[in-house]
Amino acid sequence: MTVQWNDLIVRDARALTASEIRDLLKVADRPEIISFAGGVPDPALFPLDAFRTVYDDLTQDDAAGRRSLQYSISEGLPALRHWIADDLALIGAPRSIENILITNGAQQGLDMLARLLLEPGREIVVEKPSYLGAMQAFSMRRPTYVGVNMDADGPVIAELDAAFAGGARIAYLAPDFQNPTGRSYTLERRLAVLEIARKYGAAILEDAAYSKLSYEGDVLPSLLALDDVGDDQNAGTVIQLGTFSKTLVPALRIGWVCAPRPVIERLVLITQAGNLHVSTINQEVALRAARKLFPGHLDTIRDAYRAKRDTMLAAMDEFMPGTVSYTRPEGGMFIWLTLPENIDSRQLLAQALEDAKVAFVPGQAFFCDHSGRNTARLSFATEKLDRIRDGIERLALLIKRVHNQ
Amino acid sequence: MTVQWNDLIVRDARALTASEIRDLLKVADRPEIISFAGGVPDPALFPLDAFRTVYDDLTQDDAAGRRSLQYSISEGLPALRHWIADDLALIGAPRSIENILITNGAQQGLDMLARLLLEPGREIVVEKPSYLGAMQAFSMRRPTYVGVNMDADGPVIAELDAAFAGGARIAYLAPDFQNPTGRSYTLERRLAVLEIARKYGAAILEDAAYSKLSYEGDVLPSLLALDDVGDDQNAGTVIQLGTFSKTLVPALRIGWVCAPRPVIERLVLITQAGNLHVSTINQEVALRAARKLFPGHLDTIRDAYRAKRDTMLAAMDEFMPGTVSYTRPEGGMFIWLTLPENIDSRQLLAQALEDAKVAFVPGQAFFCDHSGRNTARLSFATEKLDRIRDGIERLALLIKRVHNQ
Repeated sequence: MTVQWNDLIVRDARALTASEIRDLLKVADRPEIISFAGGVPDPALFPLDAFRTVYDDLTQDDAAGRRSLQYSISEGLPALRHWIADDLALIGAPRSIENILITNGAQQGLDMLARLLLEPGREIVVEKPSYLGAMQAFSMRRPTYVGVNMDADGPVIAELDAAFAGGARIAYLAPDFQNPTGRSYTLERRLAVLEIARKYGAAILEDAAYSKLSYEGDVLPSLLALDDVGDDQNAGTVIQLGTFSKTLVPALRIGWVCAPRPVIERLVLITQAGNLHVSTINQEVALRAARKLFPGHLDTIRDAYRAKRDTMLAAMDEFMPGTVSYTRPEGGMFIWLTLPENIDSRQLLAQALEDAKVAFVPGQAFFCDHSGRNTARLSFATEKLDRIRDGIERLALLIKRVHNQ
Repeated sequence: MTVQWNDLIVRDARALTASEIRDLLKVADRPEIISFAGGVPDPALFPLDAFRTVYDDLTQDDAAGRRSLQYSISEGLPALRHWIADDLALIGAPRSIENILITNGAQQGLDMLARLLLEPGREIVVEKPSYLGAMQAFSMRRPTYVGVNMDADGPVIAELDAAFAGGARIAYLAPDFQNPTGRSYTLERRLAVLEIARKYGAAILEDAAYSKLSYEGDVLPSLLALDDVGDDQNAGTVIQLGTFSKTLVPALRIGWVCAPRPVIERLVLITQAGNLHVSTINQEVALRAARKLFPGHLDTIRDAYRAKRDTMLAAMDEFMPGTVSYTRPEGGMFIWLTLPENIDSRQLLAQALEDAKVAFVPGQAFFCDHSGRNTARLSFATEKLDRIRDGIERLALLIKRVHNQ
């Protein structure tokens, strides 16, 4: 008797479907396509020479080299957690290393929090639109999504209040340069969000993946920073997810979760059972690279991404018809387009790839309720300046043509 | 209102408890303790110089270096999967790279298979004793364990038959140099296991983590090799888990799952949602190191571990009382002790740490039914030869003393 694999696969695992973005990227990789689709950093900005030195120094040191090739503790290297704690303190969120767990990128942090806090039917509040990868991680636990609309200042507080009043006790929010919209919350809205969460004893998962990519000076205080817990390592309303993927390189897969200790202690057990620990050498290399390169390297990449954003916005201002509106992000990698109501961005993408040789991500996938048919996410992170301008011009021409049909 | 974190944690996440081995290791790390507890490779055998060269070559190559620092596909690097497929073909198990997924160590493979195939109450067959880490990964899905006893040749076939007859359709088995016992199945027993699984259409998860650590020549064919699927990438009874952790270094966290395509396709979705992909640079470095070092390096570590095993067995033969029996493994890292019935190995451990300054792992944790109170796992992998002999002498003296009390 042969194994009927599809019969053996459990219901939780069936909840996942293939990502639109990922399938799309296969086509968008072709050199003739100007791609605003991927949310990946510009590899030209990777500090390759610095990494060569870091790897060489580490492997020249017999004791440190061998230690970095061995198994290590599930919590993550204490020295790296100290660096992260020091960095959090600098931005006004002092926490102990006992509040920090190293994860395989922020994505694994999201997955582990979903395993810890979600179960079939439990409600989770998400922004409309929200980060697709987070919803994919959450969906393996088959929760019920409660979508909250966004205005220019952040999530609509009355809707957040209604969501918590309806029973939800967990919200996933991205206050800084959000993927996919590039939007940030105002300080007033951050305070209001925290106040509402505290009113109901609800927990906030704060995605800070893009927080350091700020192009207009300092960022506003994070929700974690505003969540003053004093010296109590067990308390707090906010769990923050961070990563080196956007500031150093993605391939090390080094992210972290900063959370009250009861959460960290459970996540450590999940790590032990799930993957033992994050690559020791990658943690050591990320630490040495961060010590060596920050903050100077951050200025370098901010300058480069700011120029790309400015080029994309200038091209939009020049070429896009008045029927198209778009965000003007102060950081991150993304600009969010709202097209005329009669344009379906999935159909537009097919034509854009075929005729205009431009790629972007249709916005619908970022909405928990599958609304947003006339929206699109554009990344300015990867293409060179001249191709950004060319691509926007081509896309604008296509939109004008489609809109007038 | 403060967040009541413990109330928010879901039932699946509560199923985990702290690992006895891990808590133990904190004490066993002290230099005065001769430790047979950890199942970790000897860092003196890590090919540090080769790794330095590999990292340097990779980061000197601008294109390859930048590519290895970028995001990559969830399936894993095709070149690495080709290397693994070629290696599997060499041991008689030809498979396509479409049947291979790269994971964060074999541990993540176990966790992902648990997420794919287990749900609360579903039965899974495990050996008595079995690998503790596997049962930890499985336990997050709250399955029902069906334990099968082992004799000198492998699992007792009548018990395996009864387990499948009772409704179980998944078995987790480790035919080569098992953790914790060091035992291997005979060829006849391997064939019988496959036959029984096929009789019921049951799936086998084969743990091959230690298969390459053979000290008496070639290993027997794996269950994967015996599971002839011809050219059908969708078929098969066996899913095999492999890793570089025991042959190269653990810290890269590079393992793999070899499975029929319907399984791999679902695991790729779990990877996308769970951690995007395994560290690109670690995959590239593992591939280059394997190409450069194998099979020569395997001979080096086999010679070193064989000498350690021989030293431990010779010391056991010399010092252990006749009331203690132990396995004589032909590979791997572990020897399994069965103590006199009146000795509880947990109590023995407390005395061993205090009086004899020797560490080992009590066997009970490896039994799904918490039997095996008088058993213990000893690793010969990490300590030097003279300390192995000293440690066994001290432990034997303690056992004699305790037994006569």
